[in-house]
Amino acid sequence: MLRAKSWILKKHFEGFPKRSDFQLKEVELATLKDGEVLLETVLLSVDPYMRPYSKVIMKEGDTMIGYQVAKVLESKNPTYPAGVFVISAAGWTTHSISTGKGLSLMLPSWPEKLSRSLALGTIGMPGLTAYFGLSEICRLKPGETILINAAAGAVGSVAGQIAKIKGCKVVGCAGSDKKVAFLKELGFDEAFNYKTVGSLEEALKNASPDGYDCYFDNVGGEFTSVVLEQMKKFGRIAVCGAISLYNDTVPQKGSYVQWPMIAKELCMEGFLVTRWDNRKEEGLKALLEWVEQGKIKCPEHVTEGFENMPAAFMGMLKGENIGKAIVKV
Amino acid sequence: MLRAKSWILKKHFEGFPKRSDFQLKEVELATLKDGEVLLETVLLSVDPYMRPYSKVIMKEGDTMIGYQVAKVLESKNPTYPAGVFVISAAGWTTHSISTGKGLSLMLPSWPEKLSRSLALGTIGMPGLTAYFGLSEICRLKPGETILINAAAGAVGSVAGQIAKIKGCKVVGCAGSDKKVAFLKELGFDEAFNYKTVGSLEEALKNASPDGYDCYFDNVGGEFTSVVLEQMKKFGRIAVCGAISLYNDTVPQKGSYVQWPMIAKELCMEGFLVTRWDNRKEEGLKALLEWVEQGKIKCPEHVTEGFENMPAAFMGMLKGENIGKAIVKV
Repeated sequence: MLRAKSWILKKHFEGFPKRSDFQLKEVELATLKDGEVLLETVLLSVDPYMRPYSKVIMKEGDTMIGYQVAKVLESKNPTYPAGVFVISAAGWTTHSISTGKGLSLMLPSWPEKLSRSLALGTIGMPGLTAYFGLSEICRLKPGETILINAAAGAVGSVAGQIAKIKGCKVVGCAGSDKKVAFLKELGFDEAFNYKTVGSLEEALKNASPDGYDCYFDNVGGEFTSVVLEQMKKFGRIAVCGAISLYNDTVPQKGSYVQWPMIAKELCMEGFLVTRWDNRKEEGLKALLEWVEQGKIKCPEHVTEGFENMPAAFMGMLKGENIGKAIVKV
Repeated sequence: MLRAKSWILKKHFEGFPKRSDFQLKEVELATLKDGEVLLETVLLSVDPYMRPYSKVIMKEGDTMIGYQVAKVLESKNPTYPAGVFVISAAGWTTHSISTGKGLSLMLPSWPEKLSRSLALGTIGMPGLTAYFGLSEICRLKPGETILINAAAGAVGSVAGQIAKIKGCKVVGCAGSDKKVAFLKELGFDEAFNYKTVGSLEEALKNASPDGYDCYFDNVGGEFTSVVLEQMKKFGRIAVCGAISLYNDTVPQKGSYVQWPMIAKELCMEGFLVTRWDNRKEEGLKALLEWVEQGKIKCPEHVTEGFENMPAAFMGMLKGENIGKAIVKV
């Protein structure tokens, strides 16, 4: 009988997650019933959303949530025969049993040469977030100027590259000079290190003196309060993430948004990628095509070893990754 | 030669406007040139937007901005013959000369028995704000639940009545028991005095335990932070005004909006009624029809005397009016 290792949320995070908030646990897996498959995890994803959602949908003792690429070891479900690779939401675990619910096969057109890890990044949930956030929430049009923060991250780096494909001027900010250099390599028109610019307001004005039509916000908080003043009339703000707020013990406070929203008639919309679950295939195909054409580059920050999941997660929250943070079992 | 009296912004407001910030001035009007008309003001409007816009578009010494109903005394412009009534943006003045630019005639179908003051309220800019804010920004659908604050004001009272016509459940809040009684008379399903409820959160939950599909926000600030937590998934927020913030000397601070916006996928949009200038006729006709059918009631708070403009304005900002605040010359 197989024993699975799982990372458990031992204690709800208070402030920035600590190693002691996690616990490694072993569980014995049952024998497969009809319709079930046994999965062996190959690659895992750590993403910012896990921090706020731990509070919302997890209780202490639950396995940490998350997506993974897994191989079907044994199958009593003809949709997922042994040997195929699937995307699973089994969370931080080395093995799991699934009824097939919530599983999805890798795209049939997935090229041999392409790392399967991209199914957790550019050609997966983060890539779809960028894709639909830009088209459906920003309603980005060619020739417009867009600002993207946390731009070297899994979502931001894809959003910036799609915006370039769409014929836009793209301004990115990130938290280190190395990331800024990376953004320039990706083709961002302007990029700056928000930690060293002194005045964010001035940096935004220098990067686009006319202001911004769109703002793809992964950060929130004070950063966004400054950006609102730099938006153009009828600007659109896609609220994708708020990483500057996730680790608050006492909620931060800042300027109210109403006056800039009225004076410039801004539209700000929060979104979750699940909204377009019925259009997943369209998005994945487009992303795969751009990757194959070399129009989107997919850097990854890979951590080796399942035992390093908490470290990889905390590192990602600190911004140590350039591109998608991935853990190889 | 005619002398006009005008109220001047003597000193930019700091905090709540004071009588000494205004100055009454007399100016001699020139003789009419070809294409010009001489207007005599009959009715004036005082509105919340004048407070924030004084900062944005006025300098000290300028005539206070605003709409008025005026009678054409003399005309050298065939579009506006002597004797007709027009809506003018001449501001706080008893007489003015206009080239016709920015003037509009009263609706040709305006019934004799209807007070012309409604052209400054329910069948004018505030009514259009409610009309387009509901249809275009809230995208209100029959059966939905909408929250309206400052609901006894010029815009809120019309918004609530239109939402009832559209088949929605309407919850209103206002700042006195008299206003709350008035909202009930207008047909609001639920209404409460936000100053006396103790917990706004509880009051909102009691009025609609399932939450709110739409929120027509005239207030902003802390009030809105509480409401965001009570919105339903995919809720829409029309940011029409922010009267709780207009008189700040030091800008207030509050919770950041990003997390509730993301978790519930909310859409928040600021707007100015000028966006639909090309659909004005459609809106005015609909409003006039509802008023004539008795489906929309149009209470007014009338102050007599041009000399009382500053008092009427300050009273409106304090919330002394029920319905539209109007000044009769």
